[in-house]
Parts: sequence; structure tokens; C-alpha cells
Amino acid sequence: MGNTFGNLFRITTWGESHGGGVGVVVDGCPPQMELSEADIQPELDRRRPGQSKITTPRKEADQVRILSGTFEGRTLGTPISMMVSNTDARPEAYSEMAEKFRPSHADYTYFAKYGFRNWQGGGRSSARETIGRVAAGAIAKKLLRERFGVEVLAFVTQVKNITAKVDRERVKLKDIESNIVRCPDAAAAERMIRLIERMRRAGDSVGGIVEGVARGVPPGWGIPVFDRLEADLGKAMLSLPASKGFEVGSGFEGIQLTGREHNDAFRMRGGRVRTVSNRSGGIQGGISNGETIYFRVAFKPVATVMHEQDTVDVTLHNTTLKGRGRHDPCVLPRAVPMVESMAALVLADHALRHRAQNDWPEHKR
Amino acid sequence: MGNTFGNLFRITTWGESHGGGVGVVVDGCPPQMELSEADIQPELDRRRPGQSKITTPRKEADQVRILSGTFEGRTLGTPISMMVSNTDARPEAYSEMAEKFRPSHADYTYFAKYGFRNWQGGGRSSARETIGRVAAGAIAKKLLRERFGVEVLAFVTQVKNITAKVDRERVKLKDIESNIVRCPDAAAAERMIRLIERMRRAGDSVGGIVEGVARGVPPGWGIPVFDRLEADLGKAMLSLPASKGFEVGSGFEGIQLTGREHNDAFRMRGGRVRTVSNRSGGIQGGISNGETIYFRVAFKPVATVMHEQDTVDVTLHNTTLKGRGRHDPCVLPRAVPMVESMAALVLADHALRHRAQNDWPEHKR
Amino acid sequence: MGNTFGNLFRITTWGESHGGGVGVVVDGCPPQMELSEADIQPELDRRRPGQSKITTPRKEADQVRILSGTFEGRTLGTPISMMVSNTDARPEAYSEMAEKFRPSHADYTYFAKYGFRNWQGGGRSSARETIGRVAAGAIAKKLLRERFGVEVLAFVTQVKNITAKVDRERVKLKDIESNIVRCPDAAAAERMIRLIERMRRAGDSVGGIVEGVARGVPPGWGIPVFDRLEADLGKAMLSLPASKGFEVGSGFEGIQLTGREHNDAFRMRGGRVRTVSNRSGGIQGGISNGETIYFRVAFKPVATVMHEQDTVDVTLHNTTLKGRGRHDPCVLPRAVPMVESMAALVLADHALRHRAQNDWPEHKR
Amino acid sequence: MGNTFGNLFRITTWGESHGGGVGVVVDGCPPQMELSEADIQPELDRRRPGQSKITTPRKEADQVRILSGTFEGRTLGTPISMMVSNTDARPEAYSEMAEKFRPSHADYTYFAKYGFRNWQGGGRSSARETIGRVAAGAIAKKLLRERFGVEVLAFVTQVKNITAKVDRERVKLKDIESNIVRCPDAAAAERMIRLIERMRRAGDSVGGIVEGVARGVPPGWGIPVFDRLEADLGKAMLSLPASKGFEVGSGFEGIQLTGREHNDAFRMRGGRVRTVSNRSGGIQGGISNGETIYFRVAFKPVATVMHEQDTVDVTLHNTTLKGRGRHDPCVLPRAVPMVESMAALVLADHALRHRAQNDWPEHKR
Repeated sequence: MGNTFGNLFRITTWGESHGGGVGVVVDGCPPQMELSEADIQPELDRRRPGQSKITTPRKEADQVRILSGTFEGRTLGTPISMMVSNTDARPEAYSEMAEKFRPSHADYTYFAKYGFRNWQGGGRSSARETIGRVAAGAIAKKLLRERFGVEVLAFVTQVKNITAKVDRERVKLKDIESNIVRCPDAAAAERMIRLIERMRRAGDSVGGIVEGVARGVPPGWGIPVFDRLEADLGKAMLSLPASKGFEVGSGFEGIQLTGREHNDAFRMRGGRVRTVSNRSGGIQGGISNGETIYFRVAFKPVATVMHEQDTVDVTLHNTTLKGRGRHDPCVLPRAVPMVESMAALVLADHALRHRAQNDWPEHKR
Repeated sequence: MGNTFGNLFRITTWGESHGGGVGVVVDGCPPQMELSEADIQPELDRRRPGQSKITTPRKEADQVRILSGTFEGRTLGTPISMMVSNTDARPEAYSEMAEKFRPSHADYTYFAKYGFRNWQGGGRSSARETIGRVAAGAIAKKLLRERFGVEVLAFVTQVKNITAKVDRERVKLKDIESNIVRCPDAAAAERMIRLIERMRRAGDSVGGIVEGVARGVPPGWGIPVFDRLEADLGKAMLSLPASKGFEVGSGFEGIQLTGREHNDAFRMRGGRVRTVSNRSGGIQGGISNGETIYFRVAFKPVATVMHEQDTVDVTLHNTTLKGRGRHDPCVLPRAVPMVESMAALVLADHALRHRAQNDWPEHKR
Repeated sequence: MGNTFGNLFRITTWGESHGGGVGVVVDGCPPQMELSEADIQPELDRRRPGQSKITTPRKEADQVRILSGTFEGRTLGTPISMMVSNTDARPEAYSEMAEKFRPSHADYTYFAKYGFRNWQGGGRSSARETIGRVAAGAIAKKLLRERFGVEVLAFVTQVKNITAKVDRERVKLKDIESNIVRCPDAAAAERMIRLIERMRRAGDSVGGIVEGVARGVPPGWGIPVFDRLEADLGKAMLSLPASKGFEVGSGFEGIQLTGREHNDAFRMRGGRVRTVSNRSGGIQGGISNGETIYFRVAFKPVATVMHEQDTVDVTLHNTTLKGRGRHDPCVLPRAVPMVESMAALVLADHALRHRAQNDWPEHKR
Repeated sequence: MGNTFGNLFRITTWGESHGGGVGVVVDGCPPQMELSEADIQPELDRRRPGQSKITTPRKEADQVRILSGTFEGRTLGTPISMMVSNTDARPEAYSEMAEKFRPSHADYTYFAKYGFRNWQGGGRSSARETIGRVAAGAIAKKLLRERFGVEVLAFVTQVKNITAKVDRERVKLKDIESNIVRCPDAAAAERMIRLIERMRRAGDSVGGIVEGVARGVPPGWGIPVFDRLEADLGKAMLSLPASKGFEVGSGFEGIQLTGREHNDAFRMRGGRVRTVSNRSGGIQGGISNGETIYFRVAFKPVATVMHEQDTVDVTLHNTTLKGRGRHDPCVLPRAVPMVESMAALVLADHALRHRAQNDWPEHKR
């Protein structure tokens, strides 16, 4: 039961990195929304390996098929099943994994939990599982855009120690897509790309930070006390492979300020209640306040490195292992659509939940 | 539906800061565990206001009553209902809140969501809601200790810019409880206390970091892909009032390392698979690996400050508001039992979920 | 996790027949609905023991208290906690139950499941648990009536072999409440009452059928494929103590007809799509069709009889047991508010779920 | 969110009768169970159309593919995705359905709910959706058999007014499969078959009753108060297309008895607590008591008949419609594997839930 996410806009992903395929069932999407593979494929193309010189050279076409839930190009309100077949299986590249646990991977823990695992390419723990999330996220993003006027974006703001400056109120998708590292700060992007290339040549890897923003969320989304918007966003992000941290608004930095310095004063602006600053990150008490929602996700450096490392084998003896195969030296560029997708899934779910309990015409304010 | 947390070990909290009381229903606790109010009250005493000079002087006895789910001092396996009555209501202290939104509080967003709110002391958004969590957490901690040999602890490691050094493998509850700020590093604790007192006198507030650890968790807990242990811990922590960030293991700091530097090598030790370092924070691929689990939670500075601030009133006009009443200048000492409780709730839930699907005698490894 | 029912309008009940009390937490009720104990108490009075000569003479005042979720007489949108204290504990009346399993009661199965039970009055398996359901149902009924124009009613249509004739399109609450057996057919009611009195004198018991109806449900409620309206109604009813069967529309009788005879023809009437007959019971394909929803619930004869019966004791030896204490000779009159409540809970949940996914202004038909 | 069933053993079905295909994701199956298509296909063959002269002559091969969740012939503990492609699409057979609502079908209610529907062959409301349930049920049955020693069977006991006599304690799968109507009483089966053939020739249809039994369930499964075993079984059965009623144990008939007559006396037998009679249907207080569980499900006569019937079209005008295409004159034979599957899904879920909370070695009894 750990493969389902969301309440009213709910996804269930399935599939291992090797085997028949990977996919997702989206349950709860409202009817009558135009939808075809053309809405999904571009997002999968942003996620897929082999898209640039700084991602893994594995070629995976990742062609999506919608198997149910649409009719004559529109959603039916029934479950939308989507699938991508697995094609580029090279199990021989992984044969050593059958015997040895890769350090800081999930090999050992899957073995400990299930006593049995698909060792080919990481099986279920492979980033390939996120195909289902990104396909579902494309639908959630479209729903948010068309029915709620909400835009969700993500971009790279840090690779190792290289940081970028991005205006989260104005950044556009085309700025993000303007370079292969998906960092809208062109100068920083160039340095990041050089660093990643250097790491690849060294057989090493790096991590970094992806920032996500949601603009246009009206006041009132998010449900106290456990399903606060930041709690659901946090869970969504921390369920992504390689993520190690999440912060919203001022986050960890905010603790350097006192309460007086940190508080977001309210002022009326354009007939609406607005905050002068936005250290809250668009969320107060777990509920959106109408300001831009923003958060940051830390991704650790990729665990697969092309160097001999100490490890243990399945017979529980010490051994060593050297990474092989075709791996990303940095997950960040491909993590961008994953972060967008997970954020969109959380927001679409809360949009529908808000419709259910609130938004009554007879309510007074 | 946002007031329930957990799957198999599941809690539902209820109650506003003013009104009849606050409480919790715990569903799913196994039967035949010894349990009485004496197991719960000490944890509530760690949480309650007025416990020391650096917390709010509000006096709330917070006497818990177990209303169901036990018989002759043992759990029945039926829902355990617990309640604390509200006693110290001074609505006049809050009358200005009826008209004005406190900056960086939930007043405005509750108004925007529900069109109506209990403005006395924050209503449902008050930290008083966490009484139910801490009472339930006491049961979860006992279950983990007695049936699984797992110990959950939390402590303060940072207040504003004052940081502590704590050995997370060896720290004990009595070290944490040895001072009123709940920081086991005595020297740092003293500086933290002085800072908080200074802030109180200045009518200002500070935030900081609480670290949580779980020792003795066996390999195998946590469920891919969405209910990874860190995802559920993250959601739990980010659902706490005033929390702004969560990180597990190396967290945000880890991105300064390369993959080679960051990886945790495996070695056999004492007949078990162990990691030489623990940057993973005891979790790999969302599943515990048998090492100590640790994570950090950022709490923002308390929003209530005794200074005039710009804000808006319920008629949507600009105004100003100055904090009144008796408030904590720093939530950290009282957040410690909250963090412990939420961590224990997540782990108890995963302990039971692991029993359900895994742990078969006939399984080979 | 078996003590929670519903998705968006969700209840969690707690409490044993003996102990501190029984209660319920209602999560998901929309805000701004007028609500006080005066809305709840009349329903509990319909449920409580001792209300007439054909129910158990146990006196339980069952005074309800709303502990949270309302403010100044209106709902807040936060969890509504309600509680009834236990007062009339006479454990000595149950002392034999500590040692012996009552036939066709839950004593043995609770023992088998938990290895431990509150043997006083049935503990959690007591009908006293339904207080929480009826209290929550009163809120659901009010929500359905005020916000959706839906009326939910139930009444007795059969006691043992005595059957009643009731016009389900026109029956009113006052017809139901016009006699103590809650059967709107006065002549049948009189015979039922005489039969129940005879059974009580004979130390025996009887069962029967309660019919539930919901009028005014608009077309479109209910969610394929698993949360069909009849599936959720069926689960709700079969979760009531002593229920053994559920049928909707033509039910078991309908299988005597052929398809031609059974089908409900559609005709336009009053500008709406209507059915000429209503063998579907107002539900087609799991979704309401705008006709009156109706269903029947079978309740077995009460298991406690004042005669010696063969049974087994907790040491697993054969023995005999004779019922003692004050018991209902027939649960039907008190089951009526329970059936109404559970039906209202299902419909309120589906009303909110329908709002969430459907009902878009931009939808064409 | 209505397309998921179960808690720990959880399925999500997807797919319309026409479109890419239909399928299911099974989440929560324990690892290390041998599983291949050969375990699934025979159950789908029992469900598929065209299998005999009394089912629809539509030919659907319904070849299942396992797309994930297994490795080297064993389950991984990860989601098992299964799919059957749609092949026999003849939309022209359904073109009239695009314009007119079939009486007692789901055409109108889907239209009312979603404002839009796949009118080809009923879309999501088609019995074709149950392919996913039967495929998942095959896994649940295998799990119950291999890990818990539980056998689940179903058979036809009534078609219209023809009733069968079946010994539910001894009936075997081969008895059920010995004739095309799946009724183990050979004489009754012959009469049923003749009746169904006569109905087909008359362009009419019939309904009936399927009985389900589960043998070998240990005492203790089922969770009070809402997830009682009969409540979950009832919901499961009432979610099947065309089902109108459910009863467990003595059911509706039981109300003809008094409490003295109805009660199941306990006696020790073979060292176990047994009941002398089994009017409880193997469940007391919502929990299994170790006796055979049995229940009956009423299926209405098939709504599609080859006669002109009054109805309404999508422009909301009166019209008539005559059934066309290839339909079952009686769903009962094909409903048998559906009932078995849903029962197995409920029991597998409760088996795992029981493991989670109960079954502790340290428990005393």
C-alpha cells in the first residue's frame, strides 16, 4: 500500500526498471478535460535519460500510451492508465549487482525487507519508477492550469557549491528549458554544466538543490492539522529518489532571524490581503495565503561512482564493487520535472479537497 | 479528513485551544500492553506551557484521562480515546484577535478557508492541538520500546545561531532533560537559555533546530515508493506548528560532497551488515538499514512578538497589531516531545505494516 | 484502523460499554452550519435503552456533549468531538460473562482475536458503540437536509413474520415516531408490539427488517467501481450489530422476475429523466438516478435469551449459560436511528465526494 | 478514488470495455510467492464471454500479461500490474447507445454524473471491468491457500425460481466446474441450463443467487467496528455489476426464528471451540469464529433484452430502444469467479491486517 499517493487526485505507480514496463493509474481526474499522449510525452522527454551530454547516455525512448480513461480526446472521469514499455534491458550490465550491494543504494535494504529483489538496474528502487509520477504530474499540471489558473514550475538553484539567482515570481518555463541543467540563471548554469562534465570524467557525481514554485494558488488550500500543504509537499518531495531534505519559505535559513525580522506583515494590495515579504513561502498554518508557494529540495550526489568501494555481498562477506553501466553524474536536471510533477499532484489533490468541504455559495465571510 | 495520521497505528486529533478540551483517538494499538495515565502524563508535562522560565507562563495542568481502550490496566486492541480539558481560558486576552489577523499566524488563512474561525488563542491552529499527538506518541514510544526494542529521542541542537554538539549514538533521555532547553550539550544549553531570556525581555522570539533519532530500528522498515520512511517522517515533522524544514542524514549539507565522499561503505560487523559512515541517516531507498535513524527539523521564530506590526483586519482594512498574552519566546524546548511523538507514531505504524507484509517464517534470505 | 468510516465526511468512534464513555470524532463537516447539542440529543433519545416498554429497561440518560468543532453555535470545519459518559455500570450483572462465552455473541471471537477483552456488557461489541454513529449521523442528516435537500428516513417493516405496508415515497418522520416499534403501518405496529412483549415474557427474542429511504438525492452521487452507492450503503448497514443481510431496490425478490419484467423504463416527467418503476432502488451502475433510494436490512433475533444454553468457558471446557441482565427482546425499534444515521453518513460522504470531482460550471451535458 | 479496494492487500482496477485494455494493480502482496500468468489465466477463462452456450457468444481471448511485480517467477513484494488488451471492439453494435439510455443500465447515471461517457459497450460500467478483479482475485486465492490454508469457493444456488441443494462444507471446485452453469447440484443445474437457454431464445434474461464459502479461516479475522468481515464482504459483493443483495449466515431467513432457535451453541470438539449449528455464517461480532464462512449474493436479471423498451435519449426526449449485440441471458455462471475473487480479496486483506495488529508470540490467551 505504499505505491499510492493522494486522496481525491490519486495515483498508483507500478513497474521495475527491468521487466514489462512501468506505469501509473490516475484516479479522480475530473471529466471533460482534453487529454492525449501529446500532453504527457513532452514531460517524459524532460525526464528521460540520454537527453543531453550531462545525463546518462542510456537511450530510453519512453513512449507513453494512454490505455484508459479518455474517450474522443477527453477525460471520462474514470481511471487513466498510462504505460511505458521497457526496452533497453541490458541485464549483463548489472550482473555484479546480483551478488553485491551497491553502497548508498537500496540493494541491501530491499534484500533485508523482502529477502528477494529484482537486482537488474535497481528494480523498483530505480529512478525509472518516476516515469509514472511524471506522466501523472503532466495531467495534474494541466488540470491546475486549465481549471484553477495555477502554474507549477521547478528549476535547479544549486549544484554542489554553485548557486544560482532566480526570481521566483517571474521565472518562466522557457527560462528553465533554455539550458540542459535547467537552471534559469544562465551564468550559473554554465558553471554547473562544466562541473557536472568534470565529475562525469572523474567517474564521480554531485548533488544539489531544486526549487519548486506554485503561482496563482488561491488562499485556502491545505488542510490542518496533518495534511498541511507543506506536510504533503514535504512527503511528496522526500518520496523522490535521492532526496535528503525539504524546506518551505525561509526554511533552515529562517532560524537566523528573530520573530520581528521573520514575520510577514499583511497589507491590502489590489483589493486583496497580501504579505509584504514572503518568508512563509505562501503557506500559513498549513493553508495557502495567496502568495507564491516555494520550497527547496536537496538531492544527494548520485551513489553510483566509477570507483572501487567497500561493500558486502549477498552471502554477507566483505568485498568491493566498482560502478559500471551508464549513469547520471547528477540527477538534478532530470529531477526538475519530477519535482514539478509531485508538487502538481499535491496541489491538484488539495484543489479537489478544497472544493469538497469549502467553497459554498451560501458561506459568508 | 486532515486530522487523521497513520495507517495501521492511526491517530485522530481533535480540539481547539478554547472550548471543551483537546484529545486524540488512537486506533490500531495491539492488545495486552500495559497502559495507564501514568505512561502518558510525563510526556504531556514535557510539552505543557509554564514548565520553566523560558516557556510561556500560562499555567495549564493538562491532566490526561484515558476514556476507552484499556481494561484492568492493559490495552484491549480497541480505540484508545484520551482527553485533556481546557481550563485556563482567558478569551479577553485574545479579543483583539477577533478583529485582526496576526502576522505569520494562521488567522488569515483559516478565515480564507472556512470564512469563520475560533479566534480565541488560535483555535485549531494553536499548539494546544499537539497535546493529542504527544499523548498518542507516548503510547507509540512504549509500543516501540517494549515490542520492538526501538528507542526514539529528540533534542535541541540549535537556537538561532547557537549550535550544540551531541553524540546521537549515545545521548540519553536524562541528558536531554538535564536542562530546561532540552539540549544535551550543557555549555550550548546555557548560552541558548540566556539568548531565549534576552529575547523574552525584548518582546522578541527565536527559532532553531530539533534533531530526532531512532535507535534499534531493524533493517526493513519503510515502504517504497511513496511511504518511504523519510517521506513519512518528513510529513510528520512538517505537520508540526512552526516547522519550516526537514532533512534526513546528511541533508542539505550533503550536497557539498561528491558521490565518492558521500557514500556509506558497507562492512560486516558483529555478524551484521553495517555501514562505516551514516550519511544515509539509517535509511536507504526509503527503508531502514539498521543504523541509527536521524533527522533535523527547523522551527521558525515564534510569530507572536510584543511589538506593533502592520496587518489587516477582518473588514480588510490596513491596521496594526501588538502581541499580548503569555507566549513562548522559543518553541524549541516544548517541540522536543512533539518531534519524539511524531517520529514514534511513524515508526510504530511502519513496524505494524512491516509485520503485515513481511516477516514470514517461510521466507528465505 | 477499523474504527473509522467514510472518506470526506469521516467518523471515528471509540468506547466500550463500560469504562469512561463512548464517543465519536467527525472530520470533514463543512463550516458555518448551525450546530448544538440540541441537534444531536433527540437522535440519541431515539436510540437509548429504556425508552419504552419493548426496549431494555436499562436507564441510560446518554447526555451528549460537543467538545470541539463548533464556535458560537456554528461548525468551524474542524473535527467535531462528541462524548457520552458511561453511568449505569453494573459489572456484577456481567460477572458470569467473564468466564463464559455467550452463544452467538462476540465474546469468543474477541477472545480469539485479542486474547483479552472487556467482558463487561460486551465491551466494544456492545450496541452502546452505536451512540457515536447516531450522534454523527444527526450531523450528517442536518447537512444533507440543509445543504442538499435530502431527507433520510428508516422504519420497521417486519418483525419475525409480521410484515407492514409502507409508502416509501410519502412516509414521514412523525408516522414513524407515532408508535414505539417505529413502524408507520399502525395495524402491523400493534401486532409487532404484542409479539415483542410476548417474547420478552417468554425470555426469548425476535429479529426483523428495517427499511431505509433517501429522498431528494440528485442524479450523480456514487462512485464506480468499488464505491458504488449500494456497496457503501451495504457496508454501512452490515457494520451494525446484529445485521445479517442487505438488499437494495428489488433485492432478493427481484430474481423472480425476468429482465423484461424487471427493467425500469425511462420517461421524461416534469422536465426530468425519471423511471416508471423503481426496482433499481434509485441506484443504477452504483450512481443515484434521482429516484428515491431504498434498501432493507435484516437484523437477527437478539442473542441474549433468558434460558440455559450450551456454551464453552474461557478455560475451554463445556458449560451452560443463562442470560441475565436487562436486554432488548428486539433491537428493531432502536435500530431505526442507527440505519438512518449510517445511511446519512454514506450519503453525506458521497455528496462531498461528488462536489470534489464533478459539478463544474464549465461542464457541458 | 472509487477504483481502489482493500487496505493492505489492495487493488486498483482501470479500463473501459472499449479502448486500449483493462487491468489491475495489486499492491501489498507478500514477496517470494511463486506467480506466473499460468496462475491467473484459468480464472479469467472462467470469467470470459463465449465460454459456453449459455453465455454471450462474444469471443474475447482475454490473455493476461503480468507487467511488473515478479522476478524469476516469484513475487517481489512490489506492485503487480496485470493487463488484458481489448480486441473484439465492434463499436457499430453500440452506435444506438450513443444516443439512447438503456433501461436499468448505467448509461443515464454516468451521463448525469460525468456529463460525458464512453458509450461503447458500457464503457467503465461494463462487466469487462471485472477482469482486473478476477486477475487480482487469483493472486489472493493463491496467497490464502498457500500461506493461510484457506479455500474460497463460489457456486450458483438459484436461477430465477430454480434452487439447488449444495453441501457447503464439502463442495469442491470440480463439482462446481462439472457443468456450465457452475451449480454443483447436477439435477438443478440441468434445469437451470434449460431455463437460461429458453430465456435466450425469448430474448429475455434471468437472475439468481451465487453462494460463496470460505473454509479454513482461523478464528480472529475481521476488525470491529466498521471493518467487520461481513461488512467488507458485503461491500465487495455489492460492488459487483448487477448485484442487488447480500446476506451472511442465516440472513433474511433467520428472522423467522426466535433467539433461542437461532443461537449457535458452543461446544468443544477436537480440542477447539466449535459451534453446533452455523447460523452465524462463521462470523460473530464481525470476527471469524473458525467455522465455514458463507454468504449469498443476489444478481438481478440482465438488463439487456432483445425487446423494444421505453426510454429517453441524450437530448432528453422519450424514445424506445431494442437490445442488440451479443449479451449474456444470465450473468450467474460468469459471476461465480467474480464472487470468489472479491471474497478472496477481502480475506487476504484481513489476513494481513490480522498479522499486523495481532498474532504476537508474547500474547497470553
